[in-house]
Amino acid sequence: MEEAKANGPNGELPGRVMAGPTNPMVTPLLTDLYQFTMAYAYWKAGKHNDRAVFDLYFRRNPFGGEYTVFAGLEECIKFIANFRLSEDEISFVRQSLPSSCEEGFYNYLRGIDCTDVEVYAISEGSVVFPKVPMVRVEGPVAVVQLLETPFLNLINYASLVATNAARHRFVAGKSKLLLEFGLRRAQGPDGGIGASKYCYLGGFDATSNVAAGKLFGIPLRGTHSHAFVSSFMSPDEIVDKSLRSSDGSTTCEDFISLVQSWLSKIQWSNSLHGTFGETNQSELAALISYALAFPNSFLALVDTYDVMRSGIPNFCAVALALNDLGYKAVGIRLDSGDLAYLSCETRNFFCAIEEEFGVSGFRKMGITASNDLNEETLDALNKQGHEVDAFGIGTNVVTCYSQAALGCVFKLVEINDQPRIKLSEDVSKVSIPCKKRCFRLYGKEGFPLVDIMTGENEPPPKVGERILCRHPFNESKRAYVVPQRVEELLKCYWPGNFSDNKREDLPPLKEIRQRCINQLEQMRPDHMRRLNPTPYKVSVSAKLYDFIHFLWLNEAPVGELQ
Amino acid sequence: MEEAKANGPNGELPGRVMAGPTNPMVTPLLTDLYQFTMAYAYWKAGKHNDRAVFDLYFRRNPFGGEYTVFAGLEECIKFIANFRLSEDEISFVRQSLPSSCEEGFYNYLRGIDCTDVEVYAISEGSVVFPKVPMVRVEGPVAVVQLLETPFLNLINYASLVATNAARHRFVAGKSKLLLEFGLRRAQGPDGGIGASKYCYLGGFDATSNVAAGKLFGIPLRGTHSHAFVSSFMSPDEIVDKSLRSSDGSTTCEDFISLVQSWLSKIQWSNSLHGTFGETNQSELAALISYALAFPNSFLALVDTYDVMRSGIPNFCAVALALNDLGYKAVGIRLDSGDLAYLSCETRNFFCAIEEEFGVSGFRKMGITASNDLNEETLDALNKQGHEVDAFGIGTNVVTCYSQAALGCVFKLVEINDQPRIKLSEDVSKVSIPCKKRCFRLYGKEGFPLVDIMTGENEPPPKVGERILCRHPFNESKRAYVVPQRVEELLKCYWPGNFSDNKREDLPPLKEIRQRCINQLEQMRPDHMRRLNPTPYKVSVSAKLYDFIHFLWLNEAPVGELQ
Repeated sequence: MEEAKANGPNGELPGRVMAGPTNPMVTPLLTDLYQFTMAYAYWKAGKHNDRAVFDLYFRRNPFGGEYTVFAGLEECIKFIANFRLSEDEISFVRQSLPSSCEEGFYNYLRGIDCTDVEVYAISEGSVVFPKVPMVRVEGPVAVVQLLETPFLNLINYASLVATNAARHRFVAGKSKLLLEFGLRRAQGPDGGIGASKYCYLGGFDATSNVAAGKLFGIPLRGTHSHAFVSSFMSPDEIVDKSLRSSDGSTTCEDFISLVQSWLSKIQWSNSLHGTFGETNQSELAALISYALAFPNSFLALVDTYDVMRSGIPNFCAVALALNDLGYKAVGIRLDSGDLAYLSCETRNFFCAIEEEFGVSGFRKMGITASNDLNEETLDALNKQGHEVDAFGIGTNVVTCYSQAALGCVFKLVEINDQPRIKLSEDVSKVSIPCKKRCFRLYGKEGFPLVDIMTGENEPPPKVGERILCRHPFNESKRAYVVPQRVEELLKCYWPGNFSDNKREDLPPLKEIRQRCINQLEQMRPDHMRRLNPTPYKVSVSAKLYDFIHFLWLNEAPVGELQ
Repeated sequence: MEEAKANGPNGELPGRVMAGPTNPMVTPLLTDLYQFTMAYAYWKAGKHNDRAVFDLYFRRNPFGGEYTVFAGLEECIKFIANFRLSEDEISFVRQSLPSSCEEGFYNYLRGIDCTDVEVYAISEGSVVFPKVPMVRVEGPVAVVQLLETPFLNLINYASLVATNAARHRFVAGKSKLLLEFGLRRAQGPDGGIGASKYCYLGGFDATSNVAAGKLFGIPLRGTHSHAFVSSFMSPDEIVDKSLRSSDGSTTCEDFISLVQSWLSKIQWSNSLHGTFGETNQSELAALISYALAFPNSFLALVDTYDVMRSGIPNFCAVALALNDLGYKAVGIRLDSGDLAYLSCETRNFFCAIEEEFGVSGFRKMGITASNDLNEETLDALNKQGHEVDAFGIGTNVVTCYSQAALGCVFKLVEINDQPRIKLSEDVSKVSIPCKKRCFRLYGKEGFPLVDIMTGENEPPPKVGERILCRHPFNESKRAYVVPQRVEELLKCYWPGNFSDNKREDLPPLKEIRQRCINQLEQMRPDHMRRLNPTPYKVSVSAKLYDFIHFLWLNEAPVGELQ
């Protein structure tokens, strides 16, 4: 922990390449025990420095979709930049392994870091597809093996939640404000912090999570809760009733009376008459207090008692009183009930207020909706018609309720220049061997057409040249493509000491977010739709195809039917 | 962060009551922005020190079951014990609120801590039910409000995953070893660390997560991965082939030859003849290497190529060679395929080896199964019949894949001695007002019969006395109970400065785990079964019932049908 604390997000130590992961609990011990038992076995066999290449990829897009947003890379790079085992950690490893393990191994652990490791990755925030490695890690097999679990941990959830956020954005539409409100239901403290970070990356606009705002500069949003409303009994308990006008020129000595006079005007107005009786006084007191505290940014929760019979009239009375003093209320939040219906009724009420009292712009008051929203309910709201301007989404986006895990894996594809394959009776689980290069080929209309993996030393695809793209495992699926643009996907994010490659910069979160938004917009729409999207094509070169199948036959035992 | 780091899990600072939460990212800023905007509004209204009582509870048991395991309390108490805002945090709050907010508020924030807060809670690891508060927090309304989000965050996932673990244990049965392998798929770093802690609490035996082993003393387990197997090409690459015998008396100079001679004996044995051809040499090399590294604890993954035609014969040859040198192999792990079938075939093979070569005990070799296991697959394995001794469970248990969130809420039930109610059109969302006491009533056979909530000043239920238990919202559901034992559920875990109550100790994790196991065993079996379990009864006293409905009528607006 000492080491980890020293590498916290708030400052780099002298001599360090970069700050450590956001969560100081991300240490070399945040890994599976078998990574250490294997490290010992490699060391014991003298194999620990064998040069291994591992691919990190997933096999299926989440949420029944046909795309995934890659996220979590920055945390991985910050992790390896600071990867060293402290004495305390080494002594815990010693305690956890059999006592027969030789002391030399612990000396070896004492010396390891990631200077011999190279990491190639697709840029964070990119749209990615099954089987194409998002990250390729090369280095001494024992060290790279130790990285497997933390890398998967840091990427699996990050990519899942970023994808989930992007899907919510897709359904909500570009013009709506999307707010992440999930901290309380998240899977632990940095289930919450990670969710806020990666929801923003995936296209959300703001979060309620203050710690995430501080750590990542994400805009913060929040109003008040039901408890705030019910903590008041009646306007009588408000002691300081005065409110200075927005321009500071006058002071209203009794803001409560001003609100109450507006409330009776609303109650007795022609157009609104009869739609409600007496409003809830505890709610009225709470809204007045909130307005006195935040006259410039008054946004009120209106469903504690009854939206149309109490919350909305109370809100409008306060908003009109604020208006008298030169303040413009921000809007309301609905947290229960039929959101389509209530948002439309609320909008009608706002329009009627604008007309009745000639308060221009009142009809444009913001309406925020929350309460267990997800892709399906957003879609249903769209179909029903609604007047919501901003959605607060919690549980479903942060816990990825409809699919709580992404199945990224980390597979050995080459060791000491020998390509390796992992077989499985389930073809979708067979790994694609070899250290590979990956390219995205773009068509005439600017859409990405296909991703292709090639062997490391094959000539890369060229613009305007006809290339045969083959499905890695299905002989009959193949297509010729003439790319209009070729993008190499894997870039060097950690060159180690061995490589001449320049290290790609880790861009700020806002830039990663913008890349994500741009890439999603660039996709052909049929890949993106919610219902029956078209799968995006992922292929291998003809040469790699042949090699995969040669290796497969070589490794697979021949059955004997009896 | 500075503050938080200082409160890390590895040591208490002088003058501190206890160490801070496990994750140093759990700071007062790990909360929703609206807690701070409300705090400001309370402060501005002079209400911030109003004495509030909040209940933390959930409305529905997860996973379609009828029970929940309460977890996360210790982290909450460690959080409030160290609750203070640092200057850095205060300046971030200032930055996040409108500039019109008065400076006095930040001075107020500077001074707050939890010395005026009292926390009453059910003991961690207890079996709990909907609507009954697991935690009751009392204190100045602005401070308690700030605790809402972190408390929910720390309890929601903890209780969810502990319940999930308990359910897996229930299906697997007491005699099986349950191993949590989920770190790589968890929702972020302490999605992983929390999962390991609370799976253990809920009845698992061990984890693969080294950091969790170090932090919480949870037993660790792990073997090797498929990558380890495929990193070897053939036994030729093993340099040091010697292995000393278990008693140290002799050294086998060529362990590889010993294994190979066993492999041909197996291949040509009468009982096993013809069941396999040549085994995979890369696998054989990996297993030999692993055995040379861990002769005392040899446990091998056998499904990299083909379980019955390669993995099992290779394993047996190595295990028999180890046996020659006085070592006892531990067993195998299956990570794919038909686990019921393969485990039975494997057991048969072990039995045949025992008989053919007279190696006593070989048939009892351990069989561990992994690969996307969950409650359903465990249940299916039971029905099919299997020979698995230990289950490694990852994704499904740690992400709570079948239900990724528990819906705990934190509701105001009283302020300045005034009971408060939160209404909702959905009756199940109406809160139960008043500061309450909660009791569990036990019947003649020792089973818990019903939980009952009463007003704070009502006489508590007594053994042998007839008590009317009423459903809080359904008039017709009521029953008389004569308890044989009465257990008060809410105990004082944080007395603040005001209370004379003694603070309950926070027991070590092992003790909490044992409480959980004991309580689950104490439940009437029909509440526990997977299919159509009987709901456990949760009730209120007659007096509290009447009061709830009085308050409800009082607060609800009267509709006007038009």
